[in-house]
Amino acid sequence: MERKLEAVAEAVRPLDAALGVAAQARLDDLTKPKGSLGRLEDFARRIYMIQEGPDAVKADPARIYTIAGDHGVTAEGVSLFPQEVTRQMVANFLNGGAGINVLARTVGAELYVVDAGSCGGEYEAHPNLIQAKVAPGTASLAEGPAMTREQCLEALLLGVRLADEAHVAGIRTLGTGDMGISNTTPSTALYCAYLGFDPEEITGPGTGLDRDGVRNKINVIRRGLEANRKIVESGDPLAVLAALGGFEIAALAGLILGGARNRQVVCVDGFISTAAYCAARAICPLVSEYCFVSHASAEPGHEAVTAKLEQEPLLHLGFRLGEGTGAACAFFLLRSACDIFNEMATFSEAGVDSGA
Amino acid sequence: MERKLEAVAEAVRPLDAALGVAAQARLDDLTKPKGSLGRLEDFARRIYMIQEGPDAVKADPARIYTIAGDHGVTAEGVSLFPQEVTRQMVANFLNGGAGINVLARTVGAELYVVDAGSCGGEYEAHPNLIQAKVAPGTASLAEGPAMTREQCLEALLLGVRLADEAHVAGIRTLGTGDMGISNTTPSTALYCAYLGFDPEEITGPGTGLDRDGVRNKINVIRRGLEANRKIVESGDPLAVLAALGGFEIAALAGLILGGARNRQVVCVDGFISTAAYCAARAICPLVSEYCFVSHASAEPGHEAVTAKLEQEPLLHLGFRLGEGTGAACAFFLLRSACDIFNEMATFSEAGVDSGA
Repeated sequence: MERKLEAVAEAVRPLDAALGVAAQARLDDLTKPKGSLGRLEDFARRIYMIQEGPDAVKADPARIYTIAGDHGVTAEGVSLFPQEVTRQMVANFLNGGAGINVLARTVGAELYVVDAGSCGGEYEAHPNLIQAKVAPGTASLAEGPAMTREQCLEALLLGVRLADEAHVAGIRTLGTGDMGISNTTPSTALYCAYLGFDPEEITGPGTGLDRDGVRNKINVIRRGLEANRKIVESGDPLAVLAALGGFEIAALAGLILGGARNRQVVCVDGFISTAAYCAARAICPLVSEYCFVSHASAEPGHEAVTAKLEQEPLLHLGFRLGEGTGAACAFFLLRSACDIFNEMATFSEAGVDSGA
Repeated sequence: MERKLEAVAEAVRPLDAALGVAAQARLDDLTKPKGSLGRLEDFARRIYMIQEGPDAVKADPARIYTIAGDHGVTAEGVSLFPQEVTRQMVANFLNGGAGINVLARTVGAELYVVDAGSCGGEYEAHPNLIQAKVAPGTASLAEGPAMTREQCLEALLLGVRLADEAHVAGIRTLGTGDMGISNTTPSTALYCAYLGFDPEEITGPGTGLDRDGVRNKINVIRRGLEANRKIVESGDPLAVLAALGGFEIAALAGLILGGARNRQVVCVDGFISTAAYCAARAICPLVSEYCFVSHASAEPGHEAVTAKLEQEPLLHLGFRLGEGTGAACAFFLLRSACDIFNEMATFSEAGVDSGA
């Protein structure tokens, strides 16, 4: 299993800078002052590099995977919501009533819900549900590793499989989404382990903890880092993910790795998905070239995290919902960038003076 | 003519705060942590207030008016592009090859091109072209008023007429767009006059001036403020707009006034459109309640301007193209906000614990 994951990571290729130059030359020939569509031009250029020109760049079709998992650390009182809500929200996703359902419809992206490790048994079958439970919830990271190495690998390879299934279906852009009560806690712990933050610097209220709640959460994360200290110090990215992550986070990391291997564009959602991105990047740094961090989360630590990751979020809307909601909104900008690249007239086609 | 404009301004109504409370109560009952969709919730709440609930809030259908005008001040060397480009770009708009054509199509907004005062004669007829030339270009603001009071009123009332025509056609959201070589110069001059900035603070490169070019532009704006000093000091918003504005800017100001009077949502584009907003707000402060500033322009003065106007742009993409391109992209967020409001399940409908 571990060899299979290594093979995926080894197959991720760096982007070709020469393609970026070609893409920019086309962008500069379109009827607008050079660079005047700002970041939209950057997005188009990078998608061109990912898709290896020279034909049209296309962000569509897009598919969002909203991946669910539960967390043993919930017992430590780190969330306002009871653990049952993970399962209730999976049902809400399947009934089409959640935020991500609405925003995926609005932007015209497919949505699949994945059970990577929620508590309780199987769900009723549904055409948009993928049941691949590694286990019904993790152990508490506050007391030791949340997952075994094998469980973590199983979740990672589930994510790779999701990317591959999408690839076979012709999906060009993957959106990451999460559902898991308490999962800002493992995400924060992962940022501390991978990026060297202190919990004090980046721990926030999640779904709405008060001051005392945040204080408790910081202490829980500290205990988790201490309980898993040897693993954190080992620097083994897979072991760190197993110790401090969760099933949905590991599956999202696998989705990102698989997407990059498949030369798919990956639209990374918010605080939880960025932790998955952080894990995927620790396993294979080249994934960064395939990823767009869709939005700046309202969770206060996210800003410092994205700065350290050198990722500039596409949107600043104060979201802190997860589910893939930020990825859905940001995907619209990637589509817009592709349309600009493909459809605008050049100066010579339009008979417009280029001002050069 | 002046009485007609006053009647429009007097008919703009303040929003009802009680409707905002009702909208927020519904938003808080949807299956997500309170406030977790951040600014999207703010947008939905405001659109609910604009459209006076209690039914669905709807941003669609949307129409963008891209309004063209030329500027006498172009003779002062304040733009990299020759004046002919205004006219060439109008042709490009009608052929569907410009940035705004692409982005309006991507988001599904109607696009109309309006000649409010470009140089040269009539254009060939086109179903999406409205020919309402006040005059072929303004006089140079560096030497005195750019427009007469009558010309300015004519352009303002043209904008009101455009809002009304859209209203009759069932348009719920208006997008503002501009085309006019050199029009960052009158826009900057208007910001100085209405908001008390010094040209040094907010003058930028426009389509790409170098350091010396910006220095010249600052001097031209200073000369314009001096040549029109008595008018600026009079504080008469209409006289200031006539002295320092342009035909497209005045028409956009009228569009904003008319939109607010019609209880339409107004999505204000970038640097030029915000100057039109500034003029409309000077004529009728209540328009601010109906307007969203769509994006933070890369033109460096825009940030200080929007801060002073207490408008937080929806997008930060480094655009500096105008035409309505930022309004088109931002409109997607308004649509998303409405869909969230209308389509998400409530906690009780979905059987999800509210965590309260």
